[in-house]
Amino acid sequence: MQNIIQPTLLVDKRKAIANIRTMTAKALAAKVRFRPHFKTHQSAEIGNWFRDEGTREITVSSLDMALYFADHGWDDITVAIPVNILEIEKINALAARIRLNLVVEASGPVLFLHEHLKHRVGMWIKVNTGYNRAGIDASDHPGILRLCQEIAMCPVMEIQGLMAHAGHTYQLRHEEAIQRVFDETLQILHTVRLFLAEQGFHGLHISVGDTPGCSVAKDWSGAEEVRPGNFVFYDVMQMVIGSCSAQDVAVAMACPVIACYPERGEVLIYGGGVHFSKEMIQWHGEPCYGLVTDLVDGCWGQVQRDEYISGLSQEHGKVKISGARMKRIKPGDLMFFLPVHSCMTADLMRSYTDMHGHVIEGASY
Amino acid sequence: MQNIIQPTLLVDKRKAIANIRTMTAKALAAKVRFRPHFKTHQSAEIGNWFRDEGTREITVSSLDMALYFADHGWDDITVAIPVNILEIEKINALAARIRLNLVVEASGPVLFLHEHLKHRVGMWIKVNTGYNRAGIDASDHPGILRLCQEIAMCPVMEIQGLMAHAGHTYQLRHEEAIQRVFDETLQILHTVRLFLAEQGFHGLHISVGDTPGCSVAKDWSGAEEVRPGNFVFYDVMQMVIGSCSAQDVAVAMACPVIACYPERGEVLIYGGGVHFSKEMIQWHGEPCYGLVTDLVDGCWGQVQRDEYISGLSQEHGKVKISGARMKRIKPGDLMFFLPVHSCMTADLMRSYTDMHGHVIEGASY
Repeated sequence: MQNIIQPTLLVDKRKAIANIRTMTAKALAAKVRFRPHFKTHQSAEIGNWFRDEGTREITVSSLDMALYFADHGWDDITVAIPVNILEIEKINALAARIRLNLVVEASGPVLFLHEHLKHRVGMWIKVNTGYNRAGIDASDHPGILRLCQEIAMCPVMEIQGLMAHAGHTYQLRHEEAIQRVFDETLQILHTVRLFLAEQGFHGLHISVGDTPGCSVAKDWSGAEEVRPGNFVFYDVMQMVIGSCSAQDVAVAMACPVIACYPERGEVLIYGGGVHFSKEMIQWHGEPCYGLVTDLVDGCWGQVQRDEYISGLSQEHGKVKISGARMKRIKPGDLMFFLPVHSCMTADLMRSYTDMHGHVIEGASY
Repeated sequence: MQNIIQPTLLVDKRKAIANIRTMTAKALAAKVRFRPHFKTHQSAEIGNWFRDEGTREITVSSLDMALYFADHGWDDITVAIPVNILEIEKINALAARIRLNLVVEASGPVLFLHEHLKHRVGMWIKVNTGYNRAGIDASDHPGILRLCQEIAMCPVMEIQGLMAHAGHTYQLRHEEAIQRVFDETLQILHTVRLFLAEQGFHGLHISVGDTPGCSVAKDWSGAEEVRPGNFVFYDVMQMVIGSCSAQDVAVAMACPVIACYPERGEVLIYGGGVHFSKEMIQWHGEPCYGLVTDLVDGCWGQVQRDEYISGLSQEHGKVKISGARMKRIKPGDLMFFLPVHSCMTADLMRSYTDMHGHVIEGASY
């Protein structure tokens, strides 16, 4: 760590690989296809950690991200966001090279693709199971059936199944409640699938994917595919939800201390919204942008109730610390933080430093 | 706009230049040095718009940003964040090339610089005038005097004066209240300056810089330097504070619509936290990440109370829209948004498209 002079995103490879192994094992146990979401890390090298554990199929959240991973040897990619028809040229270019899966939820884009697609693609129907962000409503059986029929009419579209993201688990704080949403999501999708089977659309797969659900649920049976992403790193948000412990968090920010204010129990760090992101969570009732942790024997994880980032400007941040730490801290010291939302922090930093000082590049697009 | 296929940051050059001219004129009228903060745009080309209006001295918030602008011909730069002593090599490299001004607020870093500085630098003392983010407390006269004495002992340090950032104006919503904080900030700094003059430190300058204060204050007399940054673009936050009108906002995000939900008055856009940032503000009591606007005759600005981004995921966003707009909107259409915090959005996008389709690059560091 002695070479760190500015905000730096550290990754503990052992923890990340342990997180990958836990999810891979759950998928194997349930005989479910594991298609992890790579939006969290956006790095070819970290992608290889998944490949080493057997991952062959991945999820991304933009066509540019799909292109980046296609360029790094991934040939079965789902872009898990309703298709943006304005990017039809990228879609055709990618579909010519790899197994590309798209997501639709309305007739307009399906008919557009019908006219403009030049290569075979897999098609998932995005179903809203209660999160109310995206997807055709699960109760709209006629609408879902019509989408299936429209997809079936297009020779280069291969219908895959029904996809949902139960993002409402992010509001939950208890294992039973998260398990309940996980089970309900599958139940809702099974009902839709049964209806579609009765209408002649057989063998549709079910794909789910939120990290809280996938972390907490004991058994994934009932899904054919899971697509969690955040779990590779986890973060403070997932700790608060109950998906992981502080020890499981595989990334931490290292930031130089630039000023100390003993009279108000605060220090100022070089490290702001452009490094952490402005993602905020309530920590014991206070706005929190990251938790203080310590690097002990090359490992972090312990956090304290009263040590957290309480505010972020563009380049610097205010940190509440304990009296004991205040006594020994000074400008020029490094502090370490678990980020609130690792996907957002990783997107901003776009580069990682492992515990041996090796720099891992992320995508640049 | 016909070539836009994914989230794109538009800049209306006429509006930005009008904003630059307004601030430049205020500085000229008050005979105050104008040292705008370039962290907002981080672009050499946009820097040239300032240069064309007479700007020669600038503010930045990191040494990397200083290096970028030094590489683009700027030779008088203040890094307006307490100095990070771990970056001493960058400091020396820059100070060898340009007129570099640093900010200090405690003895430790001053003594460190005393030992390690190889070239002449200007030194500002950061004073806390009530925002409680950074700076030595304005009431700590002995501490401020000691800093002056320590700086005076170092032959390559040239004391410039007292710097403050009255960031608490961001919490205000009335012109009179903002004017009051602006006046109070100057008054506090004048008191400190008077004390220092009595101790033999004469001719210290006073530098202030928040965009609300600089936008609202009728008269800047009493400061020798102002350092606002955000005003070049403004944004929804500044609208809500009262620093500008919607028509003054010089940047807007263009995002493709990817799904429509008439039943809940929402659309889904391609455009998320990695494009807008997760900066949020209350808009008529609701969390808001951006306001819907329209491009009419090559110009945006009108906003409606009931049309705003209500939620942002990593790559996509939920937008509340009016019934009238819902009737005519469809996937593949572009929508336009005023960002909540233009500095954060610009940092994420790092590239602008002007109203003629010309792409303006930002820094990459």
